[in-house]
Amino acid sequence: MTVTEESHTPNEAFVLHPGGKFFFEERSKPTIQSPRDVIVQIMATGLCGSDVHYWQHGRIGRYVVENPITLGHESTGIVVESGSDAQGLAVGDRVALEPGVACNTCAHCRNGRYNLCKDMRFAATPPYDGTLATYYRVPVECCFKLPPHISLRDGTLIEPLSVAVHSSRLAGNMQEKSVIVFGAGPVGLLCCAVARAFGASKVVAVDVVPARLSSASKYGATHTYQMTTETAEKNAADLLAAAGLDLGADIALDATGAEPCLNCGILALAQGGTFVQVGLGKPNLSLPVGQICDKEIVFKGSFRYGPGDFQLAIGLLDSRRVRLDGLITHEFPFTQAEQAFENVAGRTGIKSVIYGPGVDEKAANVASE
Amino acid sequence: MTVTEESHTPNEAFVLHPGGKFFFEERSKPTIQSPRDVIVQIMATGLCGSDVHYWQHGRIGRYVVENPITLGHESTGIVVESGSDAQGLAVGDRVALEPGVACNTCAHCRNGRYNLCKDMRFAATPPYDGTLATYYRVPVECCFKLPPHISLRDGTLIEPLSVAVHSSRLAGNMQEKSVIVFGAGPVGLLCCAVARAFGASKVVAVDVVPARLSSASKYGATHTYQMTTETAEKNAADLLAAAGLDLGADIALDATGAEPCLNCGILALAQGGTFVQVGLGKPNLSLPVGQICDKEIVFKGSFRYGPGDFQLAIGLLDSRRVRLDGLITHEFPFTQAEQAFENVAGRTGIKSVIYGPGVDEKAANVASE
Amino acid sequence: MTVTEESHTPNEAFVLHPGGKFFFEERSKPTIQSPRDVIVQIMATGLCGSDVHYWQHGRIGRYVVENPITLGHESTGIVVESGSDAQGLAVGDRVALEPGVACNTCAHCRNGRYNLCKDMRFAATPPYDGTLATYYRVPVECCFKLPPHISLRDGTLIEPLSVAVHSSRLAGNMQEKSVIVFGAGPVGLLCCAVARAFGASKVVAVDVVPARLSSASKYGATHTYQMTTETAEKNAADLLAAAGLDLGADIALDATGAEPCLNCGILALAQGGTFVQVGLGKPNLSLPVGQICDKEIVFKGSFRYGPGDFQLAIGLLDSRRVRLDGLITHEFPFTQAEQAFENVAGRTGIKSVIYGPGVDEKAANVASE
Amino acid sequence: MTVTEESHTPNEAFVLHPGGKFFFEERSKPTIQSPRDVIVQIMATGLCGSDVHYWQHGRIGRYVVENPITLGHESTGIVVESGSDAQGLAVGDRVALEPGVACNTCAHCRNGRYNLCKDMRFAATPPYDGTLATYYRVPVECCFKLPPHISLRDGTLIEPLSVAVHSSRLAGNMQEKSVIVFGAGPVGLLCCAVARAFGASKVVAVDVVPARLSSASKYGATHTYQMTTETAEKNAADLLAAAGLDLGADIALDATGAEPCLNCGILALAQGGTFVQVGLGKPNLSLPVGQICDKEIVFKGSFRYGPGDFQLAIGLLDSRRVRLDGLITHEFPFTQAEQAFENVAGRTGIKSVIYGPGVDEKAANVASE
Repeated sequence: MTVTEESHTPNEAFVLHPGGKFFFEERSKPTIQSPRDVIVQIMATGLCGSDVHYWQHGRIGRYVVENPITLGHESTGIVVESGSDAQGLAVGDRVALEPGVACNTCAHCRNGRYNLCKDMRFAATPPYDGTLATYYRVPVECCFKLPPHISLRDGTLIEPLSVAVHSSRLAGNMQEKSVIVFGAGPVGLLCCAVARAFGASKVVAVDVVPARLSSASKYGATHTYQMTTETAEKNAADLLAAAGLDLGADIALDATGAEPCLNCGILALAQGGTFVQVGLGKPNLSLPVGQICDKEIVFKGSFRYGPGDFQLAIGLLDSRRVRLDGLITHEFPFTQAEQAFENVAGRTGIKSVIYGPGVDEKAANVASE
Repeated sequence: MTVTEESHTPNEAFVLHPGGKFFFEERSKPTIQSPRDVIVQIMATGLCGSDVHYWQHGRIGRYVVENPITLGHESTGIVVESGSDAQGLAVGDRVALEPGVACNTCAHCRNGRYNLCKDMRFAATPPYDGTLATYYRVPVECCFKLPPHISLRDGTLIEPLSVAVHSSRLAGNMQEKSVIVFGAGPVGLLCCAVARAFGASKVVAVDVVPARLSSASKYGATHTYQMTTETAEKNAADLLAAAGLDLGADIALDATGAEPCLNCGILALAQGGTFVQVGLGKPNLSLPVGQICDKEIVFKGSFRYGPGDFQLAIGLLDSRRVRLDGLITHEFPFTQAEQAFENVAGRTGIKSVIYGPGVDEKAANVASE
Repeated sequence: MTVTEESHTPNEAFVLHPGGKFFFEERSKPTIQSPRDVIVQIMATGLCGSDVHYWQHGRIGRYVVENPITLGHESTGIVVESGSDAQGLAVGDRVALEPGVACNTCAHCRNGRYNLCKDMRFAATPPYDGTLATYYRVPVECCFKLPPHISLRDGTLIEPLSVAVHSSRLAGNMQEKSVIVFGAGPVGLLCCAVARAFGASKVVAVDVVPARLSSASKYGATHTYQMTTETAEKNAADLLAAAGLDLGADIALDATGAEPCLNCGILALAQGGTFVQVGLGKPNLSLPVGQICDKEIVFKGSFRYGPGDFQLAIGLLDSRRVRLDGLITHEFPFTQAEQAFENVAGRTGIKSVIYGPGVDEKAANVASE
Repeated sequence: MTVTEESHTPNEAFVLHPGGKFFFEERSKPTIQSPRDVIVQIMATGLCGSDVHYWQHGRIGRYVVENPITLGHESTGIVVESGSDAQGLAVGDRVALEPGVACNTCAHCRNGRYNLCKDMRFAATPPYDGTLATYYRVPVECCFKLPPHISLRDGTLIEPLSVAVHSSRLAGNMQEKSVIVFGAGPVGLLCCAVARAFGASKVVAVDVVPARLSSASKYGATHTYQMTTETAEKNAADLLAAAGLDLGADIALDATGAEPCLNCGILALAQGGTFVQVGLGKPNLSLPVGQICDKEIVFKGSFRYGPGDFQLAIGLLDSRRVRLDGLITHEFPFTQAEQAFENVAGRTGIKSVIYGPGVDEKAANVASE
């Protein structure tokens, strides 16, 4: 089923204008441009710190909100049209969306690292519109069918879960290893869950806010540690003592970008340990490079997700080795999208979700199984 | 041939005392302690920055000169005694010495990373004596026969060459890749040479001192760049322009430990690039972590050398894919060892060598082939 | 606690003589030879196909029973003496034994692959005696403390579990991958269990004997397939259909060494799949090399176990991600050791265990927790 | 510059019909179908054993000549038209062609292994036409600019060189390793050259025909060995003795597909060695699987080439680390294409090249530098 002429179905969008004001606007409905495209009706979208950052600061690094932009990129939806070559998908399919469309032909794409593609069109990263709208167009390789027991609401967590999967894969084999995860927000908690599913014997969740740590054990953490204002050396020593890791930790994942966390993590690693930087923080940070050398640590940056990550994230849900219950703490109808942004800005709860325009939230909460 | 009783042959040593004074002392000659030990008469020893640092500062990090210590660890010698199970070595063999004796049984040693061994006894790292003496005892696995065309003098460069080999291996496949090397001292120049031998198509040597860059092309550099006092961003852009690397470099090796070099290197890397920190610098440095994330860079610490590195270094000499001519710029008899330290402290030339007690420097300069 | 003189404690051994006759003999008790040695009183020993093969055929490949030899190498025991440098172990510790003592200094050992050591002294591989005796001497790196909830009886399975761990690690990342395991004997079942613990989403156990398949689901298999006498192509197609793997399997592990299994496995692999040969079979087998090329398959031989394998095996038990209940189907007192060999030769049950001389089997069955 | 209507320029093609007869036919000139397409005028095409096999046998495995097909896939040409988005290419550019067009969106393509793509359209593999024609259409990612010093004639060797590069990369790090190459035809000789460029210290070329071995030293072989009709064990022992490899070889590459070569190679490998199967042979071969297990050998199939291989092949030519002089021993004008097939079928010389229709062979022989 393809649509070749512009459709006149209304396409409502929640649009951020330069200067930081949101408006509800009607946009033209996207149309199939290539045989591999599908049109998805957006059912739910999780809010990410980056969405809020664009609203509050108008930019993230070199990406600047110079024109009106629709935010949102953690979405699920239902296929409403599909191109003639969109194999494996049918109208009515419940899908999670991978929000980045790579060129697929540059050297990075061909080499299995499409997240490094310079021509990537990533939803809600200027100048590309995001998914807080009625309809969205993506190529078939960016659609992943939801497992039957995952609701359209919970499926919005597949995008941040894929971030956690990508970072955890970069950390290498985790079987019976010890893993420290800095940050107990949505990505940090999902890193805990993935590390545990990947076989880590100890997973230490670290945060400054006790309330956030309290739920970490539900998502795979075997230990928690509350960062103090002491030195990185003291925090590292206390953390290791609390977790019974006298030889240091094998792996650290940082989902905070905060200098004290990076320093604590590097100091807490054992000889030959691996550190993966998941979250973005300030552009420049002071690090204990001497320790990186002495212990021959590998420090890796992790950027979004790449080949197989969404599929593996869905596999972890399918096999129920990762559970999402309770991660979504706040839900908003589309008409209250701005309140959702304010809620996230206020750091309330764990994850907030905005339902698509006109979506019945009860329906979106029900799994198909 | 084994010696079971203490020998009375004189063993002269050049000893650093706490406080920074050197003395010539007579020590007892080392004896075979295990069937795998050999006794080597030291013929020549290259001086390393760390030797000079212990002299000038009395410590490197947690390693403190609390008792008199013999320095020196870049040595060649001739086997004068060998234990009953020192297979493959005979009295009279010309050897390069690997200066670290690992326990060989801990988890790191068993896992192929003996450089991370916590029980490592490393020559000239307190409290272990180094090689500036007449005789030295090592286990057979620390002796590597010199290729016939390599003199005992030039063979002292095998230790720093192994440092370069280890770092370059950590950087991964270099075939037709672009490599930036920061620092054009002995280790940096050897990194250039190894990178070229490992197939790098472009090797950019970087230093602040033009005189050091002038010889870089002899050791494999295809381009040179003189660091300026401009920002890291400007230096990175200028360096890439000078080398014709519009997409960024694939690999950077830092042999300086200097913050401007690390920053320039990370900024100059392409997406997916690799940075290896070879030299030790200050314990803490400010790094562009945002760039490490955005470009998914791997930043690795490199510590000394591990399995196969000495053997590979010797192979590179054997096949003449790495050439050492001209790297040793200053030579001193044992009686003038202190002048050698002063020479290195004054940053004169590239590499200084001290001959063993009573060694005829002409003989040490001649290759056996 | 060290013993420097020969002890006169009796050391009973069950000894195979050339020609295939067993005798109970009294041997001198082993003594501490190096500070890192420990003496272990053997509590239980699992029988392996190789033990039975030496009895029945007098040789395995180039290893020939030319002199009397004590068999057995899957053992647990209790430390009764420890050398002065046997760190981390104390008299009374319950341990599993790694039966191979590597030289620790050759290139393979130093490079992290001690299982390839040419000087390996492996228990019950001629000319080295095995563990079917009262006492056995091993260096400390070959002793692994049992988790408290694992009995000395069940601990004998740690050796074959380590074989499964080693093979599964060679197969690479198994997260949400499909894995076929050929052979539902002890090693095959343990491969199923490890594959599942390593995150495989589908584990297909394959055997010719339905009775052996019936217990596979207890040890991690999600599907079973009974090999028929049809062609490898037909078996591969039927197996994939039965497991719902229309694109082929990601990984195959063979614990049979049987030509039809290897052929079926290679044909059943997807493009880019990995095949690991765990069991030894005939020296030469016909393989579909054309398929290996077309699908760019990696075919790996797996030999015993290497660095970290015993530790990881114990970790899997410790975290209860692998369970051993029911794998040991037959138990024999030391005086009936020959009946145990006959039992294994008759392929009765899954695993047979022989208790050490004078060991109270009830005590050996009790975990310390 | 794009062409949107069918052009009427003649497009001569050399076409194989089912049954094995060749005909010169006029086909319509290909046109730009997508903005990333380019049209290339074919200047020269090397003949491959597979071309001859389709002519003589009408099939290779499951690929059958059911309809007329243009053969040829080792080609260079000059860009004569380019699509609006064919970045980096201009009309007049001298290019080597990568003959496989992958879908770029399936899991294998996205994962960096496009050579495993099930939708691959590969030139001269039924039902896809090859390059023995005046014009050919390819997407821009399949065009690689020739280095200025490489002639259009010699550039036809870039395709087989990429085969050698792919196989050699699969073999892992070759620095100072010993490599055996079976087969001294074009691919085998190029494997020798690549192994040497990749740092192998010893490269042993093996063949049954002394004449073919005589030129191996020009392409990087340090030793040659003539296979005899003795057993694989004897050949392996003799080969190792001839090359001074008493511990066995580190790597073997087979470009013959002949059972005696595979057996000799596996037997000649050292513990932990790697075998790469480059050439296709019979579907089923008998292999010494016992040796693969005992020595923990990795046996890899190699299929065509993947990401970066053409670029690396060209880099090796650009840096003159691989030289092609003398590999092309026979040249034919397009009108004598059938004689070229007969020449290759008769195994005369090393490589035969057919110039494009109307191409002046002198012009094609001149490098642009």
